[in-house]
Amino acid sequence: MKQLKGACVLGQSGGPTSVINASAAGVFIEALGQECITNVFGAKHGIVGILNEELYDISKEDMEELNLLKVTPSSDIGSVRYKLKDANVDDTDYKRILEVFKKYDIRYFFYNGGNDSMDTCNKISKYLANSGYECRCIGVPKTIDNDLAVTDHCPGYGSAAKYIATTMMEIYHDSDVYDTPMVCVCEIMGRNAGWLTAASQLATEAGFGPDLVYLPELPFDFDSFMSKVGEILKKKPHVLIAVSEGVQTKDGKYLPELFQELAKDSFGHAQLGGTGKVLADQIHEKFNVKVRAIEFNLMQRCAQHLASKTDVTEAFNAGRKAVKFAISGVTDKMVGFKRTYVNGKYKCEYVLIDLHLVANDEKKIPLSWIKKDNTGLTKEFVDYALPLIQGDMKAPLVNGLPRFAKLKKVLYK
Amino acid sequence: MKQLKGACVLGQSGGPTSVINASAAGVFIEALGQECITNVFGAKHGIVGILNEELYDISKEDMEELNLLKVTPSSDIGSVRYKLKDANVDDTDYKRILEVFKKYDIRYFFYNGGNDSMDTCNKISKYLANSGYECRCIGVPKTIDNDLAVTDHCPGYGSAAKYIATTMMEIYHDSDVYDTPMVCVCEIMGRNAGWLTAASQLATEAGFGPDLVYLPELPFDFDSFMSKVGEILKKKPHVLIAVSEGVQTKDGKYLPELFQELAKDSFGHAQLGGTGKVLADQIHEKFNVKVRAIEFNLMQRCAQHLASKTDVTEAFNAGRKAVKFAISGVTDKMVGFKRTYVNGKYKCEYVLIDLHLVANDEKKIPLSWIKKDNTGLTKEFVDYALPLIQGDMKAPLVNGLPRFAKLKKVLYK
Repeated sequence: MKQLKGACVLGQSGGPTSVINASAAGVFIEALGQECITNVFGAKHGIVGILNEELYDISKEDMEELNLLKVTPSSDIGSVRYKLKDANVDDTDYKRILEVFKKYDIRYFFYNGGNDSMDTCNKISKYLANSGYECRCIGVPKTIDNDLAVTDHCPGYGSAAKYIATTMMEIYHDSDVYDTPMVCVCEIMGRNAGWLTAASQLATEAGFGPDLVYLPELPFDFDSFMSKVGEILKKKPHVLIAVSEGVQTKDGKYLPELFQELAKDSFGHAQLGGTGKVLADQIHEKFNVKVRAIEFNLMQRCAQHLASKTDVTEAFNAGRKAVKFAISGVTDKMVGFKRTYVNGKYKCEYVLIDLHLVANDEKKIPLSWIKKDNTGLTKEFVDYALPLIQGDMKAPLVNGLPRFAKLKKVLYK
Repeated sequence: MKQLKGACVLGQSGGPTSVINASAAGVFIEALGQECITNVFGAKHGIVGILNEELYDISKEDMEELNLLKVTPSSDIGSVRYKLKDANVDDTDYKRILEVFKKYDIRYFFYNGGNDSMDTCNKISKYLANSGYECRCIGVPKTIDNDLAVTDHCPGYGSAAKYIATTMMEIYHDSDVYDTPMVCVCEIMGRNAGWLTAASQLATEAGFGPDLVYLPELPFDFDSFMSKVGEILKKKPHVLIAVSEGVQTKDGKYLPELFQELAKDSFGHAQLGGTGKVLADQIHEKFNVKVRAIEFNLMQRCAQHLASKTDVTEAFNAGRKAVKFAISGVTDKMVGFKRTYVNGKYKCEYVLIDLHLVANDEKKIPLSWIKKDNTGLTKEFVDYALPLIQGDMKAPLVNGLPRFAKLKKVLYK
């Protein structure tokens, strides 16, 4: 395979994670050291930055700051949610992308994101190939949701899982201090897949976790839920519950919807709020106990100070590998993770997965990993998740607070 | 002063912090090593454990676990919110306490908590003194709210402040990634005093913090608030706001109250939720931008993994000092903190403060530390708070998760 000379561009896309910047650092640092890469660009707000010709010149950045990117949460060059139309329906965007790529001689395209972003990467890859413009297109995975197909796991998940398990253990301590009953309902992200919520099972394994864990993989039975809460309250005064924001009844209704309807029908007052709030309110009404609803909110996806070293390292390596694979001639692939065990020790291998296999597919928790009574996860899940949360890797402290990267973000002229 | 021989008891009281157990560890470890202390008890759920004669025998615990208490959040032997009546109105509880103290020969009483707890400690101290029963009563301060009178600061505050500033910096990164406007409102604890909310100013000083910070010390002017948000939105697309749950209008109304009333009057739909949610909804309605309300909820008071080493150390020392002071003859005091600077370096001295000066008083942020336009804090506050958040001291990790103390909690017979 002849060496391809030209510029490279990286775009970040979709919701933040603690380690998407670590992948960016991997791409940038590796690309800056490669002779065949003539320019290293960061697209401002992903694909929109390419459409708008807003490209940061990464060679202008200090290497120290690029290294700090590894431990800086979220998407430092800006993210985007922009869905490309099918090229055979409307190829305006694609023509523009090709135009920009030609203008800047971009021959390496790296796109870092989740399912939708891999769809974007896949579409661009196919369009460029059909148009005869030589450009290596590689997807770099990213999503706290851990729901990308084929790959064993996704960068961002380990750190989010570590945040969720650690925070659950702390909330367990906080919510059981009084001599009066108290039910605490924690709402965790994950609209369709329960990987994040499942991570709270790790807290239970460590001795201080939720009594009940509800994932969107199975229908949520409200009556069964309430009777389980009642049973636990008979045995002990403090109950801790983890619930995915995405749980649905067997009729496909999210809980806030369900209770807004019920409220209109019977109680006559509006029930607002998220899944956790709705459940906490119902528990209060039925059992007359103190309740608290906690949303893990943005913190679960940006708490870099609790990042898993394994996750940061793999995210960084995924970025580097993407560049190396591309230079070696690979295109139209996503860098995926394959788990192996060497002498019983977890190891991550970087493999290649066809972009079209990942684009818009979704990997859920195997139903066999959910306990028969739907109250938590089995040992299979725990064994799967534990290696991903190992080690700490947080930003250096200055004055007791994290020193995150401060990029210059100079637009290329 | 003759040495007083007898048992000691510690009670934990009021809301959790990341370091109240560090003070317990200080009391327990120091007391176990003192010859004149014949038994070391932990009262199950504070003063209620004494009334119920439920006393943990701390000599049964492993020293390793007692050391882990230093890095275990919340109140491991159980907390309580129980207000003692005035002894001259109803002395039933006091008679009972005296009876229990006599039965177990308790001569040292340590009570660890905030304003209300110091009131309890003060009342018991006075009653025992009047009754002629010799018992040394010492308060050990604790409150994330940092609102105890006379003392420079309170154990628990430094760690909560570190959590708030760090989390603000991370949310700043998360909430500014898209190319569309977004206003994020973070609601922070503190019903009357703004110390916790003020800590978010430290994030701003570090380069990634809120644009606006609202404390309960000053009346909240809704119109002025909205016009400030509008001004910022004209200059940049992302706005981050920190607001205390306790802000009130000049008529003394909390925001959720105010908007429930307004809603009934004009819009005809209920506005539920806390201060942050109410403000976020109003901003969305007026400026038609994406908004997000985040409650820091229990995490701000139990996130041990972000504890300040300074705070943990001072909390532990406060417990040890309480025992040492008591043995040396001191009674009817709280251990307080006095700040000094040695060669410009912050140092904490442990001093004695009359219990009655602390009981039920409340220390707010000096108004001169709030910026003239009420949008944040001055350098005086930053200089005050920074030394309190220095250093890390978190629980050791096992399997990537904190190894918190596991006490046996054996009741004394």
